[in-house]
Amino acid sequence: MPKAVILLSGGLDSTTCLAQAIKDQYDCYAISFDYGQKHRAELFAATNICRQFAVKAHETVTLSIGHLGGSSLTDSRLKIADANTDDEAIPNTYVPARNTTFLSIALGWAEILAAEAIYIGVSAVDYSGYPDCRPEYIAAYQSMANLATKTGVEGRPIRIITPLIHLNKAQTIQMGLELGVDYSQTVSCYQANEHGEACGRCDSCALRIKGFTDAGVSDPTRYVASQQPTIIN
Amino acid sequence: MPKAVILLSGGLDSTTCLAQAIKDQYDCYAISFDYGQKHRAELFAATNICRQFAVKAHETVTLSIGHLGGSSLTDSRLKIADANTDDEAIPNTYVPARNTTFLSIALGWAEILAAEAIYIGVSAVDYSGYPDCRPEYIAAYQSMANLATKTGVEGRPIRIITPLIHLNKAQTIQMGLELGVDYSQTVSCYQANEHGEACGRCDSCALRIKGFTDAGVSDPTRYVASQQPTIIN
Repeated sequence: MPKAVILLSGGLDSTTCLAQAIKDQYDCYAISFDYGQKHRAELFAATNICRQFAVKAHETVTLSIGHLGGSSLTDSRLKIADANTDDEAIPNTYVPARNTTFLSIALGWAEILAAEAIYIGVSAVDYSGYPDCRPEYIAAYQSMANLATKTGVEGRPIRIITPLIHLNKAQTIQMGLELGVDYSQTVSCYQANEHGEACGRCDSCALRIKGFTDAGVSDPTRYVASQQPTIIN
Repeated sequence: MPKAVILLSGGLDSTTCLAQAIKDQYDCYAISFDYGQKHRAELFAATNICRQFAVKAHETVTLSIGHLGGSSLTDSRLKIADANTDDEAIPNTYVPARNTTFLSIALGWAEILAAEAIYIGVSAVDYSGYPDCRPEYIAAYQSMANLATKTGVEGRPIRIITPLIHLNKAQTIQMGLELGVDYSQTVSCYQANEHGEACGRCDSCALRIKGFTDAGVSDPTRYVASQQPTIIN
């Protein structure tokens, strides 16, 4: 079977992508990143998810970019803001060039493996306004990648596949449930505790909660005991 | 003064770029990468070079991509080949997507710093046939970067500057000498020992030796005592 590299954070979207890649009959190689994020619980989730789905290999790449600052996801001095769906500004959870960096490391691994494709779970519908989740960004990345690599130059470009790019969160959840994803194992929260329990308040929790509500599916997320999730309609 | 991020390996090309960025009146922020390369001596060189030039900050980002394999620069099981200028194939020192990965981390830092530019010392003239050193690659990277970042989306793209892209090694050396670069402090060798002494045999040494010869300048490189450098005409 051909190979694909899957960017797997351990969250809802990337896990759905992994399930889709398996359905698409790829041998799956998952890659996760330990980049100083506060929600390192997602890395344990990713490891468990890789066991459930029979991935061929799972690599966790360490990347010391957290100390460069610039994001509340990695900087202990910055508080992760509660969700605010009225505010259209890019929130302080934005990690500059994160998808570009992660895709680039995945691109290198894909070339080493002679993989045909990279799956990334970006969505341009229910997202937090990050510029590197839009279709025009992905198209530009693909053009660049074709010129960056030995395989691209030799006429065998590695395809960037974005199964969720036009789906909202509810549609992603419906797709994942059909593919057999157990969302109780996924961690989306930006400040999940060490047990993988979610805060129920951050942007990522808010999008996820709304997704389950809109999909008409009960939310299997484990929340911290003291916190009732905030439901935004 | 405006800010620029400089990709600084500690070798001849990137040090020349740093000198050019200083001449271009940027406040310089240097970034180096500890990615499992055999020639870690270049990182010590980079630190010394940053002291000589008064850079504003120097970050060394650790990146555990070496264990992904695929290159003799990082894989202890693969021998770094001696230079072979007759062979036009991409050599086994190629690290898949390395420039793309390094540029992407630099792009993130540039956005955090509100820097205007990133300097990278690629050349499409005297190089080892790596695809990610060509002008068409850099142009595609620039287009992608403009869409990837908050600053790009807001109309303030970060410029990728390649002062050496059309220079051969001799021209780069001449430019650097005019800018005051002390090349005895730079390490280019792919298998430099812990003292920063060069092998005189690898592709990178061969290009450097030929550069000094063509420039008519005595070669200040420190070679390992047992090794006379190979001169390729």
